[in-house]
Amino acid sequence: HSYIWQLEVKRWFVMLLIGMITACIAAVVDICIDKLAGSKYSLVALYFEDRTDNMTILIPFFLWMSIDIALVSVASLLVVYGEPVAAGSGIPQIKCYLNGVLVPHVVRVKTLVCKVVGIVFAVSGGLAVGKEGPMIHAGSVVAAGVSQGKSTSFKKDFKVFKNFRTDHEKRDFVSGGAAAGVAAAFGAPIGGVLFSLEEGASFWNQSLTWRIFFASMTCSFTLNVLLSYYNGNPWSLSSPGLINFGEFTGIGYHGYEILLFLLMGVFGGLAGALFNAINYKLSVFRIKYVYKSVLCILEVIVISILTVSLSFLSIYLSNDCQPITDSVQYPLQLFCGDGEYSASAALFFSTPEQSVKTLFHAHEGSIKPTTLIPFCLIYFMLATLTYGLSIPSGLFIPSLLAGAAWGRLFGIFLHYLSPDLFSDTGLYALIGAAAQLGGVIRMTISLTVILMEATHNITYGLPLMLVLITAKWCGDIFNHGLYDIHIELHSVPLLKWGPPPLSSHVKAGDVMSRPVITLNTIESVGKITEILQQNEHNGFPVIDPYDQSGMHGGTFRGLIIRSQLSVLLKNKAFTSWPTSTAPRRRIELDDFRNEYPRFTEIEDISITDREKECSIDLRPFMNPSPYSVSKEASLPRIFRLFRALGLRHLVVTDGHNRVIGMVTRKDLARFRYSSHRERGLQELPVVSI
Amino acid sequence: HSYIWQLEVKRWFVMLLIGMITACIAAVVDICIDKLAGSKYSLVALYFEDRTDNMTILIPFFLWMSIDIALVSVASLLVVYGEPVAAGSGIPQIKCYLNGVLVPHVVRVKTLVCKVVGIVFAVSGGLAVGKEGPMIHAGSVVAAGVSQGKSTSFKKDFKVFKNFRTDHEKRDFVSGGAAAGVAAAFGAPIGGVLFSLEEGASFWNQSLTWRIFFASMTCSFTLNVLLSYYNGNPWSLSSPGLINFGEFTGIGYHGYEILLFLLMGVFGGLAGALFNAINYKLSVFRIKYVYKSVLCILEVIVISILTVSLSFLSIYLSNDCQPITDSVQYPLQLFCGDGEYSASAALFFSTPEQSVKTLFHAHEGSIKPTTLIPFCLIYFMLATLTYGLSIPSGLFIPSLLAGAAWGRLFGIFLHYLSPDLFSDTGLYALIGAAAQLGGVIRMTISLTVILMEATHNITYGLPLMLVLITAKWCGDIFNHGLYDIHIELHSVPLLKWGPPPLSSHVKAGDVMSRPVITLNTIESVGKITEILQQNEHNGFPVIDPYDQSGMHGGTFRGLIIRSQLSVLLKNKAFTSWPTSTAPRRRIELDDFRNEYPRFTEIEDISITDREKECSIDLRPFMNPSPYSVSKEASLPRIFRLFRALGLRHLVVTDGHNRVIGMVTRKDLARFRYSSHRERGLQELPVVSI
Repeated sequence: HSYIWQLEVKRWFVMLLIGMITACIAAVVDICIDKLAGSKYSLVALYFEDRTDNMTILIPFFLWMSIDIALVSVASLLVVYGEPVAAGSGIPQIKCYLNGVLVPHVVRVKTLVCKVVGIVFAVSGGLAVGKEGPMIHAGSVVAAGVSQGKSTSFKKDFKVFKNFRTDHEKRDFVSGGAAAGVAAAFGAPIGGVLFSLEEGASFWNQSLTWRIFFASMTCSFTLNVLLSYYNGNPWSLSSPGLINFGEFTGIGYHGYEILLFLLMGVFGGLAGALFNAINYKLSVFRIKYVYKSVLCILEVIVISILTVSLSFLSIYLSNDCQPITDSVQYPLQLFCGDGEYSASAALFFSTPEQSVKTLFHAHEGSIKPTTLIPFCLIYFMLATLTYGLSIPSGLFIPSLLAGAAWGRLFGIFLHYLSPDLFSDTGLYALIGAAAQLGGVIRMTISLTVILMEATHNITYGLPLMLVLITAKWCGDIFNHGLYDIHIELHSVPLLKWGPPPLSSHVKAGDVMSRPVITLNTIESVGKITEILQQNEHNGFPVIDPYDQSGMHGGTFRGLIIRSQLSVLLKNKAFTSWPTSTAPRRRIELDDFRNEYPRFTEIEDISITDREKECSIDLRPFMNPSPYSVSKEASLPRIFRLFRALGLRHLVVTDGHNRVIGMVTRKDLARFRYSSHRERGLQELPVVSI
Repeated sequence: HSYIWQLEVKRWFVMLLIGMITACIAAVVDICIDKLAGSKYSLVALYFEDRTDNMTILIPFFLWMSIDIALVSVASLLVVYGEPVAAGSGIPQIKCYLNGVLVPHVVRVKTLVCKVVGIVFAVSGGLAVGKEGPMIHAGSVVAAGVSQGKSTSFKKDFKVFKNFRTDHEKRDFVSGGAAAGVAAAFGAPIGGVLFSLEEGASFWNQSLTWRIFFASMTCSFTLNVLLSYYNGNPWSLSSPGLINFGEFTGIGYHGYEILLFLLMGVFGGLAGALFNAINYKLSVFRIKYVYKSVLCILEVIVISILTVSLSFLSIYLSNDCQPITDSVQYPLQLFCGDGEYSASAALFFSTPEQSVKTLFHAHEGSIKPTTLIPFCLIYFMLATLTYGLSIPSGLFIPSLLAGAAWGRLFGIFLHYLSPDLFSDTGLYALIGAAAQLGGVIRMTISLTVILMEATHNITYGLPLMLVLITAKWCGDIFNHGLYDIHIELHSVPLLKWGPPPLSSHVKAGDVMSRPVITLNTIESVGKITEILQQNEHNGFPVIDPYDQSGMHGGTFRGLIIRSQLSVLLKNKAFTSWPTSTAPRRRIELDDFRNEYPRFTEIEDISITDREKECSIDLRPFMNPSPYSVSKEASLPRIFRLFRALGLRHLVVTDGHNRVIGMVTRKDLARFRYSSHRERGLQELPVVSI
């Protein structure tokens, strides 16, 4: 009893650590970006000052461009030569991990370092990326690291938390880390929990959820304290997350506006589908042609030049001058009169987070449509081009920004039609942002809650939800969410939430792989070695040996997995000589734990010919009652077993309890109901990753 | 494909209806209580006016008492003679329903009417009850009714939503209804979703969660519109729920206060455990002695008299006079000077909701400790006595109120120690309220979110969470949550979230019931009738018939449930004469749906002796691939199967796929790890309900 209690206390303690460390990382990222981008903009703004002729204005332009190129090159180098899996937002990888598919290297310390340093440089370098997605990845890596109490990269074993060295426990902690990451990114602890549930949970586990909530709350609180301290008012606790949408207090909405919101949802869904379609083509192109390291870095630099040039051109050509107020961080005067600043520069010449806030809260009339239209188009294009580059890059902020731009445009249009009825354009910017983001990533309940928490306003719940539903439904007509597209591009056998519709006629006998490689309860070392060398399977059913006639025997007894076999072989847990029955060495639970998670490959275990004739009794180590189904079981039934219990293998038996096949995740993932192709069940080829 | 789409649209539409109807009911309840309690207090206050001598003050006292007795009698009559299951908060019953156990009558229209009318009279009658818990029950009944498209009580079949007439679909909608109820009660749509998940969900289903969220959002929005309209400012949308904690804006907290909050959590846990212990004794007493209708009603009247007398005495004996402000609804002058009112009366002489708000927001110093101490003690006692009476009664508000009182007391004490450090006593009232409620009901994540949403303040997330964790942990040392205590008192086989710890040595063979009553694939009508008459089992395994030697046959083929057999027999789906093989009448899916949910009892189906010799081929109707386990499967494994897949029966087979036993929920629920008794696994007797 006290053992269980200790374990429970340890679990809470680990969650506390995860929350606090994630918050520290988030704070460091935020402060570094603030300092780095701040220095950059101040410096460039200095050179912009008082330049109104066409030639000398090129000086700050080239300065700006060279700083940006330098910054993004660092980010790109880290990813390309450091850890390629650190590219992108990391959400697709975490989604796979929580779903039960391990993408190699995704939760290593090296990945964390490349990701965190990379995102600081990428954001400061002015690319159309956000720092939010990477925080979720960072939180997950922290969780995976802390919970194991050791680091294989650093060859350091702290000898703590040994009980947590199993896939199952580690995955639970990573859920908490992902939630903490969301909490840090958006100041949305509840949204974080729902994100973890939506992406990862199969079976609702109350005490786990409670711990996840604790991690995300701790993270949000710690970050709040750190950032409030950094901002100079320690106990105001006004910065629960990296992104701050500002206060929307006092702005209500009317019943009739809901129809307009739905319309915006439709538009967001279409725009999102367009975004995804372009990015899909681009990603396919990148996979085919841009895979060399140098090309990857070059591509990043080209996009960076494009970003700076377009931004500069828009600022240069714009004539939207506004009187200076306190809210503008880096006001550029340019061709405007004294005491005025260029509104276009306020959007292009600042961090994306700041621009989102400007679009949400700048008072009516402070940004002209002639500024917004080019901004919206350019930013949409840049965001599409940027996602998928070899840099860490969040997708939330660029989508929000593009959406906020067209949302605000729509609001200005409505205000023009009837200034009394539609007084607030900021609300439309918010709805547009939600619609665009929903159209791109197609997340549902967690996204609603994240946005609700980020706006600190519960009243917007219903409009946000309706907009996100509409955007998702409209977008789903054309393609999948962007994360899912990228997961599919890598052929990961991800399981959906439910079985494919109309699949109840498909039986276990149709999906299973066969023949199955089975092991006898007492098996020779030679055969085990041979089996492990000759195939890549992960689980092997253990059966009673057949008698000479082949009539009796073959009854299914249990399941043993590859890593267990490798530990048994490595520790020589077999009999001392061929005819003996007692094993040479007793194997303890710790022998398995110490190896976790990087088990020795069979090639690296040396087995002598004499040893090959010895045998192992597998019964003490195998799982004696694994889940199995009869070959008549239907696909939806198998699917639910996999999804609800987080299975990786399911043994299929005949009426006499003899093994006739195995169903793995890949077998299941092959069957998908595709509404975008031939409208029917189809088998997709799945490539191992 | 279009069929699936239609079904999906219908599901959303039903959820919309559930949300809107639940909101309407909530609005009606709220307005009726407002009017009824308003008239009562105004009338009594009129008689209280200017009475300062000891004799005539008894006139308003007796008027107050007689009005209260009249009101609570109505509530009690409705419950006792109308529908006894409408008593209490309804949350334990809904919890059972969502867990998979059907408490009879719990989702019927009659129950709804008794509950809703009863709660109006009970709250107006001044008892220590809240209107929140019953809203959750009301939402669930609405969901069960709307989703079926028919009412058996009214003998009306609208012929719509026929697809939803299965236990599984109905249960999904009831989850939505419960969430809508929470949303209506507390203005907490996210809290509602989490409540449904926490109490009901086993397997996370994204699209279902999304629909549940839609129902609760719609409900909160509709209620907001209705109540805002009633309060005279239609589009302010400031009343998202029945209970309103008021605005806590601007009150932060300091790091060192968290320690004090934890201390309050401990106290709340202890106070909650005391509450539960007393209420448990009382409930056992009630089950033993107070079960006659007249006694039940008499008990309610006695408690009502006690409530009024104690309230009156406290007001009468108090000397806490405060200057009148606008926030007091029914100021009583009594022995106070002109322009002053009795602070004690402000707490006792108003609806509990109003008193909670007073304790949270009344400015420092407006309530004296000498008023709070008796209020806290009296209310704690009254709440303990009241829960379990034969009236609809919510538990949230009384617990919050008692907690807010001692929380505020603690705040006043701190303020007395250091007026600078502890400026706000209202925050301490809130924390105390949370601690007390958490200590009584021991809910975790959903309660945190509900309280966060009710306070409209995300900053209080961490303190609320820490307090609720501490209160739960402290309380759990002594006893279970009050809802669980009441569920246990009724011997419901409720499954916990996880398997009992240290139970992995228990095997399927130990838990299963045996022998099992099996049916042959082709079975005679006589045997089926006999089996259905002679036992109460719900599921029957179907096996291949044994041959004469008894050596071959007996292979497990499928599972058929009682209601299916009853429909088959009722519709005479057997062969026309004993030797024939073709059934007399084809059975359609609609034959099953039309009977749902009240299937004909076997006693009411007339089968002639000649028919008894005919036979039914069960294979087209049985479930051909039900889940089964081998007798070696461990209890935790079986438990997870039951919980994750929502099973009701699990067939246990031997190595040759022959049925050797059945595990039902009751078999599982018998095994509990009780930390309060002998500290070990024990088998509890389970009584059928």
